[in-house]
Order: sequence, then C-alpha cells, then structure tokens
Amino acid sequence: MSTTLVDRLRSGDARALARAITTVENRAPGWSDLLKALFPFTGKARIIGLTGAPGAGKSTLVDQLARHYRKDNPAVGIIAVDPTSPYTGGAILGDRIRMQDHYGDPGIYIRSMATRGSLGGLASTTVDAATVLDASGRDLIMIETVGVGQDEVDIVRLADVTVVILVPGMGDDVQTIKAGIMEIADIFVINKSDHEGAERVEREIRAMQSLATRNDRWTPPIVKTVATDGVGIKELAEAIADYEAYLKKENLVFKKNVENWRERLVEMLRDAMLEKAREQMEGEGGVVERYASEIAEHKRDPYSLVEEIARGLERHPLSAVPLPAKESRS
Amino acid sequence: MSTTLVDRLRSGDARALARAITTVENRAPGWSDLLKALFPFTGKARIIGLTGAPGAGKSTLVDQLARHYRKDNPAVGIIAVDPTSPYTGGAILGDRIRMQDHYGDPGIYIRSMATRGSLGGLASTTVDAATVLDASGRDLIMIETVGVGQDEVDIVRLADVTVVILVPGMGDDVQTIKAGIMEIADIFVINKSDHEGAERVEREIRAMQSLATRNDRWTPPIVKTVATDGVGIKELAEAIADYEAYLKKENLVFKKNVENWRERLVEMLRDAMLEKAREQMEGEGGVVERYASEIAEHKRDPYSLVEEIARGLERHPLSAVPLPAKESRS
Repeated sequence: MSTTLVDRLRSGDARALARAITTVENRAPGWSDLLKALFPFTGKARIIGLTGAPGAGKSTLVDQLARHYRKDNPAVGIIAVDPTSPYTGGAILGDRIRMQDHYGDPGIYIRSMATRGSLGGLASTTVDAATVLDASGRDLIMIETVGVGQDEVDIVRLADVTVVILVPGMGDDVQTIKAGIMEIADIFVINKSDHEGAERVEREIRAMQSLATRNDRWTPPIVKTVATDGVGIKELAEAIADYEAYLKKENLVFKKNVENWRERLVEMLRDAMLEKAREQMEGEGGVVERYASEIAEHKRDPYSLVEEIARGLERHPLSAVPLPAKESRS
Repeated sequence: MSTTLVDRLRSGDARALARAITTVENRAPGWSDLLKALFPFTGKARIIGLTGAPGAGKSTLVDQLARHYRKDNPAVGIIAVDPTSPYTGGAILGDRIRMQDHYGDPGIYIRSMATRGSLGGLASTTVDAATVLDASGRDLIMIETVGVGQDEVDIVRLADVTVVILVPGMGDDVQTIKAGIMEIADIFVINKSDHEGAERVEREIRAMQSLATRNDRWTPPIVKTVATDGVGIKELAEAIADYEAYLKKENLVFKKNVENWRERLVEMLRDAMLEKAREQMEGEGGVVERYASEIAEHKRDPYSLVEEIARGLERHPLSAVPLPAKESRS
C-alpha cells in the first residue's frame, strides 16, 4: 500500500502528496517506512527558509516570490509553519485564503503546519514534510516560519538558504525575533521598506554585521522589498541565486549538507528517545505515576531519579549500529 | 563547597542565590548536585506563571503585582523568560531597567532567563531556577514568559497558577499566541482594558470557554487591568487567591503536583537522553560526521539509522531504578 502511495506521489498526484504529508505530520502508522521509501528520491529540490517577526509580511513575500519563480515553470511547494494562532485555527484559515489566491495553478502546492501537541517535534515534522515535497518532484520548496521559537529557528536553519525578514517602524516591543536568528541569515529582507525607519533597520543590520564573522565568509546582502506591490522580489530572487552560486563556487554545498544532517540526526535521535521515554513512562503499570507521587511528597528527589534512569542506558546506542565501512575505527 | 553555597543561599545571601541560578542555567559543573541538595528545602513557594503575546504589558503587570504582594512582606522572586530579543541582548537590558525600578527593595529578586544555545532546555533551566528561588526561602515566585513558543508554554504549565494576558485592539496579526495557550489559563487578564476592543476580547474568551470543559471544573475568571495605572491589580491578586483556595478545597493541590512532576520527569529524561546522544555523537572519533556524510551522499537513509540506534536502547531504562517500595509491581 505504501508502495502505491509512493508511486502515486511520484507521478504527481496531489491527493497522494497531501496524504503523505498528513501521515508524517501526524506520525501515523507507517510514517517512518514512508520516509525511508521516499528518501532515495530526495536531494534535488532547492529549499529556501524564510523567517521573521509576526506582521513582517512573510506570507505576501513568499507568495510573490512563488509567482516570480513560476515564470520559469518550476514545481513549487510552500510550507507555512504557524505555531501561533489568534486563539485557534488561524493557520488553517490563512491556508484556505492563500490557496484561493493560487487557485488554478497546480504548479504551487501550499501546506500549513500547525503545532503538534507533544513536546517538541515541530521541527522534525516540518523537515519531513519538506522531504515528502522533495520526493514528489517539487523543484523549489519554501518554508516560511514565524521567527519566535526555538523550533522555528531550527527549521529554517536546515534550509539551503535562510532569509530573515525585518520591517521598519514596528517598535522594539513588536520587532522581537528569537535571539540568534540574526546570525543564521544568509540574506536579509527589509520588507515594507517604503515605511519610515527602513534606513535605521539597515544601519542596525550593518552594525551587527561589522561585529560578526561567518565561517563561510559570506556577507549577507540586504534586499529592500514592498511585497504588497511586488517591489524588490526580482532582487530577492537574484540574491538567493547569488548565495547558491557562492556555495557552489566555494564547494560548500556538500559541507553545509553534512552539517545539516549532523544537527538533524541529533534531533531525530532526541525525538526517538523521547518517544521511548514516554512509552516507558506510560507503561510499566503506571510506574511514573508512583515516582511523581513520591517526588510530590518529597520522598524522592527527581534529579537523582533521572540520573539513575539515564545511567541505565549503559550500552552505547551508537555502537549498536554498524560503522561506515570505508574508514576503520581509531 | 557546594554545601557552603547551599548554606549561604539558605541564609538569604543574594549573591549566593545569583550564583546558584547561574550554575543551573549554564549547566555548570555541580548543577545537578546543587539541585539535589536544595530539593529538600523546596515545595513551600507559591509559583505563579504569567504569559501573553509580545507587547501585552507582562512586565508592567508583574511589577505591579509584586508591589501589591510586597505590602504583606513576602519574599518575592521574579523570573522573566525572554527568548525573543530586539536583535541581541534585549533580555539583559530590560532586566537592568527593571532592577533599577525595584532598587532598594531586597524583598524582590528579579532574574532574566534568555535562550540557551542548545536544542530545547529552556523550560528545564527555568523550572530549575524556580526551584533554587524556592529553596532560598522566596514565598512567592512569578515566572513571566512570552507565550509564543512551545518552551514557554511548557514553563507556565508547570506553575501552580497560570495567568494568560491578552490585550484588545492589537489586530489578529499581532495578538498571536501559541495555539493551546488559551487552554492552560487558570485566569485570564485583559490588560490595557481601557483601550477599544476589550469587550470583544472578553466575548471571544467566553465563546471559547463555552466549548471547553476543564478536568477540575474551574471556570477561569477574566480580570480587566490597566497595569500602567495599577488598575485591577488587587482584583488579579484576589482571583489568584481564589483559584488557590479552590484547589485546596477540592483537594487538587497534590493531584496537580503529581501531574506536573509526571510532565517534568519526561522532560528531564528527554534532556538527559539528549545530552547522552550528543556526547556519543560528538565522541566515538566523529562517527556522526561520517554518518552525516553518508546521508548527504544518499548512501544511507537517516530514518533507518535512527531506528537502529534507538533499538540499541534495549534495556528498559526504568527497570534499572528501584521501584517505589510501598506497592509491589503488578
């Protein structure tokens, strides 16, 4: 059955694509096998991550960028990650409105990812959704997130190109983005650049850049846009292409890929371990319930307990896996 | 040495308190032993979590509430969690400004927690900082967070009382808070309630409440405040006291405590496991580097790899720990 789904997905069936993403998003039975089956078909898409504060105009910018790219006819996938919502259901509603906007263009596929109920996991499911889109033959994938939580930062960091979107004149209280997000930008966009204060934002970015040095020695350009009017979209696409060309020229594509997978492996392992921890906590005749009671009664301290449990993991998990054949272990 | 630190902390030494929090925040050597030593002295403080969108006036509200409580002379601790920052260093700067405001009142201790560089962990370090404050003899601890990321939601959920702060008239785009945050509120505050739109926010909360039912059958009250003018602060303190009295009357204090520890144990175990995973990934002669290369070259799929590693964790970690003595295993 999963093979059929893979075949249909590969042949461009949009419903199969939607179903596959839902499967990985919900961690529904077979999600892991599905990703295994799809993995050989991945690695071809360009993945662009775009992030910024709420109200920075990300959706409009991404839509304009998609429209621009569509002139050359690539298959485009958009993943909009929106863990914040005005009360409830915001992401879904926004999704529907945007779908209407691109209605009739099967070359653009838009999908919203909202939060998962469990601890963490949003970064993983989003990157997995991008993997599905990649395998489905999408040439270009844009992942758009609100740059406020660690999850969201983790998501865009794993893109090939990271665009950070700022806006002038919103005041310090609102133009708050996650600490550390400035450092991951490959390209800065000052959107709504016709508003007052655009120069100030630019100066602040330049001041920050004068202090930092990047490992890859790339200086992130600043592109000014007015997304609602389509201003600066072509320039942004060019800046993205420039960075991709730079990565290629400096032989950094593979290196960046390896670094991303290092991070991803740790995250995936964390998620798998959390799942295991949960299973054990819920099982064993409610043993965790009793531990929790003992801690609440101050009969046991939780720090020693967790240490004891972790110490139980004596076997090196990694040593259970065959090492790469080429290099012998030192 | 750690004993000396504990003694000094217990005797009310503010510098020892600061050092102890820094130790747990940075996971500096001895952090775990320190928490073990402090645990017996905890469980006395009231812990109030307050969360809301950026710009909702949280800091002002918390400061006013602290001032109000200080009339009865309890020792107050405030932890301000601010993972967002205007570019960089925002949390620290805000901290300094607020410290000046309470300068001369040793009964209020304010501490900012910014983001940690690693994946996750902010919820853990914040709750640990609250544990240190609790052990230091603070009667009342307020934890204030921006309600935008999963981390922040996890933090306030572990408080005894959770206050969610909304504001009228900011527009849907800005009044975005993490999906699911409405559900964890024990008390709603509509701050800046003199602004237009306060009634609309109230109606929306009421509409949402008519759909949901809580396990503890408590109906979260809505308190209107104008924090900058001190309006509604007394009423908020009363609402908090009401909920605490309700929990006591219904014998829910212990139950809630056990539930919190259940969640915390899973989180702590996840953090400990992640630490282990990281160690192994970094060690072993850079084995993860080689795995990451193989995946980047598409020679190996990451999903099977992580499954194999997780399968290496065959021994049930929990079975390594002595079970509670009182009840025999089924």
